[in-house]
Order: sequence, then C-alpha cells, then structure tokens
Amino acid sequence: MRIGVFDSGLGGLAISQAIASRLPEYDYLYLGDTKRVPYGGRSQETIHEFTSQALTYLFENDCELIIVACNTASAEALRKSQQEYLPAHYPDRRVLGVIIPTAEAVFERGTAKRVGVLATNSTVESGAYERELIRQNPEAKVVSRAAPLLVPLIENDGLRYAGPVMDDYLAGLEDVDALVLGCTHYCLLKDEIRSRTKVRVVSQDEVVPEKLADYLVRHPEIETRLGQSGERRYVVTDVTAAHEKWARKLAGDEIRLERVTLG
Amino acid sequence: MRIGVFDSGLGGLAISQAIASRLPEYDYLYLGDTKRVPYGGRSQETIHEFTSQALTYLFENDCELIIVACNTASAEALRKSQQEYLPAHYPDRRVLGVIIPTAEAVFERGTAKRVGVLATNSTVESGAYERELIRQNPEAKVVSRAAPLLVPLIENDGLRYAGPVMDDYLAGLEDVDALVLGCTHYCLLKDEIRSRTKVRVVSQDEVVPEKLADYLVRHPEIETRLGQSGERRYVVTDVTAAHEKWARKLAGDEIRLERVTLG
Repeated sequence: MRIGVFDSGLGGLAISQAIASRLPEYDYLYLGDTKRVPYGGRSQETIHEFTSQALTYLFENDCELIIVACNTASAEALRKSQQEYLPAHYPDRRVLGVIIPTAEAVFERGTAKRVGVLATNSTVESGAYERELIRQNPEAKVVSRAAPLLVPLIENDGLRYAGPVMDDYLAGLEDVDALVLGCTHYCLLKDEIRSRTKVRVVSQDEVVPEKLADYLVRHPEIETRLGQSGERRYVVTDVTAAHEKWARKLAGDEIRLERVTLG
Repeated sequence: MRIGVFDSGLGGLAISQAIASRLPEYDYLYLGDTKRVPYGGRSQETIHEFTSQALTYLFENDCELIIVACNTASAEALRKSQQEYLPAHYPDRRVLGVIIPTAEAVFERGTAKRVGVLATNSTVESGAYERELIRQNPEAKVVSRAAPLLVPLIENDGLRYAGPVMDDYLAGLEDVDALVLGCTHYCLLKDEIRSRTKVRVVSQDEVVPEKLADYLVRHPEIETRLGQSGERRYVVTDVTAAHEKWARKLAGDEIRLERVTLG
C-alpha cells in the first residue's frame, strides 16, 4: 500500500518532495488535478466534489493514507470527507490535511499569542485556520490575510514583480508571534518572505514531513501496511509542456507525469 | 431562439455587455464555466472537451448562434468544433469565434504590416492569431507576446501592481502598426494599455459587436429565427460571493447568476 499526496495542481510537489526526502523508504502516489486547478476561488460544494473524486482515485489505487497537501481542499472539504465519505466507503483508511499539523507547529516553539495567516481567498473565507488555531490555544489572536496574487506570480514567472505585492500582504502582520504560510505554493516563497519580515515564518514543507513521521510512529497498524520499495508515481488530470517543465523544476528531471481521469 | 455567448469564466461579460448594448433587441444566454476557469494553461484536448460541453449546453438551450468570447477556446477548439462537432450534431446552427473578426478589424483601417498580439500562453502557443492574420494579409509580420499575469492581476484586485508588468509585456511591441488585445479580459485594461503605447490598440469589445451586427445583416436566414424580447440570462458552472461581485462590476447590479452543470 502507498502514501497518497493530493493537490489541486503541481504546487503540492514541494510538499511531496519534502515528505519523500524525510521518509524515502515508502511508496508514494502523487495526484494533481491540473485539469481544474486552481481550487482557491471555487465554491465549497465544488471543492468538496473535486476532493471526493481525488480521494476515490487514490484509494482505488491502493493508498492506505492520503495527505491532502492543498490548503484550500484541507480547509473546505477535509472535515466533511473524514466525517461522511471515509466512514461510508473506506472506514480503515486515513486522510490527513495540512492545517492541523501546521497549527500544532505554531504552538510547539515558544508561546505564540498573535498568529498571522497568509492564504488563498477561499482558505481565509473558510475560517479553518482561525478555528483550528483557537481550538489548540483559546488565547490565540489570529490575523488572516488573503494573498491571491502570490500563486499566479509564482506560476507565471512573475517573481520579479512580487516584492511590492508581498510587502502589501505583510503590512499589518509585523507584530505577530508566528506567521503561517497557509498555501502549498507559498513554501516556494519562504526565503523571500523571511527576508521581508522579522517574525517566525511557519512553512509547511518544514512541518508536514516531521508530523507525518510522528504519525507513522504513533500508528504502527498503518505503518506496517505500507509498501517500502521507494516507488514514486505522479499522476495528473491534464498535461502540457508547461506542466512538465514546472514539474521538473519542483521535483527534478526524472519526474514523469501520467494522465488520468477523475470523476 | 437566442444568441449564446460562451466564455471560460466571467471576463466574457465585458464582450457580452458590449454586444447587447449594440444589439439590444435580441435574446441572450451567457455561459461562463466558472467551475473550471481559467482555460489558458490547459491542453488542447481538455479545452476542446470543455468547449464541446459548453456548445452542447447552449444549443440544447435554444441558441441559434453562439459567440465564443474566450480567445483560448476560439484559438484551440473552434475550428475542430466547426468541422466535426457542428456538422454531426447541429448542422443548421452557427458558432463564431473572436479571432477572425479581430484580425479583420486589424486590416480595415490603414495598411497594417507589423501586427502585435498580446494573449494568454495557450493562445500564443496555438499560433491561431498568426495563422489568421497571415491568411488575411500574407504580407503581415506578426509579433506575439504571452501576457499570463494580466488576467490574475485583473481578477485579484492587482491593477496597482500592473504598471511594470504591462511595460515589460509591451517592450518590443513599440513599432507595430496595430496591437491586438487577444484575451477577453484585456478589454478591461484597454485604457491603461493605450496610455502606455502610441500604437493603435484593437480591443475586442469595440470590434465584436459591429462584426456581429454585420453578420446578422448578411445572414437574414439566421436573424429572422432570433427572438426579440430583449431577454438576458446568465448561467455559470460555479457561484461564490466573489463571482457575484465580479459579475455585478462587469454587467451591472441587476445581473443574476444561475448555476448549471455541464458534461
């Protein structure tokens, strides 16, 4: 059985590479819904529909455990999937999002009271980070900021224009104790963001692999079912030359994208 | 029977408003595929699949004539639809794109030799403007420039960052005789772009309505089948509060978006 990693597109490769580098022995299947990316501006109903189709694909392809690397899907669809879809269809499998482990990481070091969150429109509107951070620390004050231009700037070779955009998004977040980068893509900007702020920046590529390693130690009943041949497969719902180039940039020249159909 | 206007999202409302303002007597049905927008980075196969589903919906809902307002769909999928899909399924209906009328408009005024085209990645890669411009004027030299950041900047309240981006995209296009704004959204930037260049800018909201009026005069067999109650309907495949706000901005406060399913 494999570990599945699901993202709306290819940005999640940044997380899946970090996971596979921390836990290289396991077999991985990455799924990117490149035919319908981005999810960030879609309705909750649509995000839930797309996410359920992706989970079904990964379960049908022998994933024991799925990491939903997409913050938008984690924020909008994960709880509903865990409460309704999973018990009905795959009661012995597991789906983990990125929001709970990220919130845990915020409070592990020091005593963060004011927490900033930078994320897509729909993740901010969902209130998922705010809910989870306050659930873990009822004293926390959360300041969320939608940063909708960062993904297009990253994906369209626009980093040279990103300086003033980042400065505007970071304005008002100077006095937080920790700043969460609440979108998979933002890992790719973490050095730029750290150079522009003095606050502690929590980046998911540094958090999620450790949290998954802990999880597998605490859940040997799952860990023992995982294949350990170090296999890596990458499937997507649409492929262009630009997708292949972007995938090579994020995951190395040897990556091969296979096209599949969802739903 | 109605006139259908199809776009990948809501940007086509800029064109549909201009058409309805020029030809207010007819009945219109607008379809925006907001569940899967944007099309600009997807494969030819996927764009063709999505476009065929949209055409089917509009034909099944009594559209006599469809304007494909999306340049990406016009570039990638229109010819195939006209040659294969239409004769097989709806031989007496018509589908018109925006590329042929835009190319005609380039050569109507003056003697354009060098023509610039600003468009999405996939429209530029398709070579559709270059082919059509050279078909109409074999002497023409076409300089195409992909401008992938303009749509995200327009859609995410980023116009204050757009100055340096536009200047970079316009660099090298200073000596053309006409500059085509080859993406539906770019109409919304036409004043900004005109203030940054001395060349003649061809904007589709100024071209397509006149061309459609001409077409209906030349095709009375179609014109006489069109309803003339001035009805306006707007259907989309996904609806959020942000979609509704954006639609009101483009088409006025009275617009109502109805959700439908394609495919």
